Amino acid sequence: MRIALDAMGGDFAPHEIVRGALLAQRFSGVDVILVGEEEKIRDCLGEMSSGHAPRIQHASEQILMHEAPALAVRKKRDSSIAVCCDLIKRGEADAMVSAGNTGAVMATALLKLGRTEGIDRPAIGTVVPTRSGKAILLDVGACVDCEPKNLLQFALMGAVYAEKVLGIQKPRVGLMSIGEEETKGNELTRAAFREISATNLNFRGNVEGRDVFHGQYDVIVCDGFLGNVVLKVAEGAAEFIMDEMKDAVQSSWLTKLPMLFVRRSFRGLKRKLDYAEYGGAPLLGIDGVCIVSHGRSHARAIANAVLMAKYTAEQAVVSSIRAFQAQIARGEARPA
Amino acid sequence: MRIALDAMGGDFAPHEIVRGALLAQRFSGVDVILVGEEEKIRDCLGEMSSGHAPRIQHASEQILMHEAPALAVRKKRDSSIAVCCDLIKRGEADAMVSAGNTGAVMATALLKLGRTEGIDRPAIGTVVPTRSGKAILLDVGACVDCEPKNLLQFALMGAVYAEKVLGIQKPRVGLMSIGEEETKGNELTRAAFREISATNLNFRGNVEGRDVFHGQYDVIVCDGFLGNVVLKVAEGAAEFIMDEMKDAVQSSWLTKLPMLFVRRSFRGLKRKLDYAEYGGAPLLGIDGVCIVSHGRSHARAIANAVLMAKYTAEQAVVSSIRAFQAQIARGEARPA
Repeated sequence: MRIALDAMGGDFAPHEIVRGALLAQRFSGVDVILVGEEEKIRDCLGEMSSGHAPRIQHASEQILMHEAPALAVRKKRDSSIAVCCDLIKRGEADAMVSAGNTGAVMATALLKLGRTEGIDRPAIGTVVPTRSGKAILLDVGACVDCEPKNLLQFALMGAVYAEKVLGIQKPRVGLMSIGEEETKGNELTRAAFREISATNLNFRGNVEGRDVFHGQYDVIVCDGFLGNVVLKVAEGAAEFIMDEMKDAVQSSWLTKLPMLFVRRSFRGLKRKLDYAEYGGAPLLGIDGVCIVSHGRSHARAIANAVLMAKYTAEQAVVSSIRAFQAQIARGEARPA
Repeated sequence: MRIALDAMGGDFAPHEIVRGALLAQRFSGVDVILVGEEEKIRDCLGEMSSGHAPRIQHASEQILMHEAPALAVRKKRDSSIAVCCDLIKRGEADAMVSAGNTGAVMATALLKLGRTEGIDRPAIGTVVPTRSGKAILLDVGACVDCEPKNLLQFALMGAVYAEKVLGIQKPRVGLMSIGEEETKGNELTRAAFREISATNLNFRGNVEGRDVFHGQYDVIVCDGFLGNVVLKVAEGAAEFIMDEMKDAVQSSWLTKLPMLFVRRSFRGLKRKLDYAEYGGAPLLGIDGVCIVSHGRSHARAIANAVLMAKYTAEQAVVSSIRAFQAQIARGEARPA
């Protein structure tokens, strides 16, 4: 299994990316191809003792974290992101990972690899912690203005990912909304409810905001605008609690002391909410395996993302999505 | 100041509502009119020792918490909610409070009192705690499918409320979105950004999910679908943290003991996130003062809601909204 890894993407590139590549190679049989400025990558590798050195694929340009994706993709034809996609297209890599500009990764992947047959818009899925395990929330930012059919496709892509990669049998699918009944929600979710109900997905109806973390759903579907807000509000609420509690206890050593202990649990939770810890977020609906990592990823997160990419490619997630979508389009995936 | 209070609404009606009325009367010069089944109210009052007994206004019917609002409002013409609105309409009450079926309160108020001139759709505002005080988040469920002009109107109504009732000078208005730049967001928020920018509101641009609780914004504007999800996700995230921490410490007395202390802070926070603690949520854009309280409200929350209603009426929030909206419509409220 060969994974193209964007060595220039992310806040700690290329150093942490190269370290992540070595970690991933050490812990699994994966072959990483480091993509980016050859000299810089070689310098990093030189500092690190390594058994089997990864292959390097030169790319002369780099898209920065805050560049406008559309323009950057048009102008920088030899960016490390573009070269990663080219490697997949030429059959030299089975998957790619980038911690770079997410918008640019998405635009480049769409341009070079195209969409999975039958999927209109790709989605970014994020694994979130729940009381009983994990769930995939999608979309969290790829598609901000959705139609009902997009949400249906997100549901099926999420279900395939949950089953193949998270190992959940007959994943329970929920639609993010504001009440349990089918009639609750906005125009978009009410129409999507009907469309998802008409398939043989294990659809459990609407999910309310407070149930996201309860663990009754394995796949939580929403448009990319809502999903992005939801993720960040959850992070913000966790930070707020932490800060409020710091204030509450800082007045006395009697209360500071127990907090020293409790604080560790908070840090664990903050990490849990940060998708870097899960290695990355799959870009679903692209005709190829593409994992986007958080810009703040360190070596461990990069290594996890590489293993996630390997597993997603091995489990044939893309072709399963294609097959499931075709089944739905033929009207075969109806409720029993 | 006379406040019509729906004695039949909420999970603990009429007992807790009647207790709340007495509390409010004791602590302020307000006159409460208890609206509902006279006999039941009289029974409750009989059990409680009270100085100045509130007036009772009989209503023969009661809309239950889970009834479909549209149907219930049509069928139960003499509901306690309807009678509260009638009292305002006839000039016998200056404001109303109900902990009953929120949808029914909204539908009845719209029908009987109508909208504030120039406001197309009403909004429910919720006061949320922030690191530096409080902010009003609106809409949280009245208007689930919005146009840009609705969000503009929510912004101005929120600003008037923040200034008049929360006492914040030149309240900082933010638009809930997924990035700071004007170009970020979905179709709705990008258009609303332009409309709000063109007024003399103290508009500070987009608010990201994680900044809701930071305290840089006094008014946070979004459609009712998003606002409802945001509120509930924040509650869910807080619960998740609490539950995860309970699990983390329950293995040993050494860790259980400090948690006994820390847990209190959590409960405080959960209360802070519960709008019942702020007495209630104003229904803005109705041509009259209407406060909806949480169905689980006990006496203290009801008393706070009555005081909130009194203050909202005294501060002439409705006429200020009308005047500000007229100014915007005439094109006078442009940035300097």
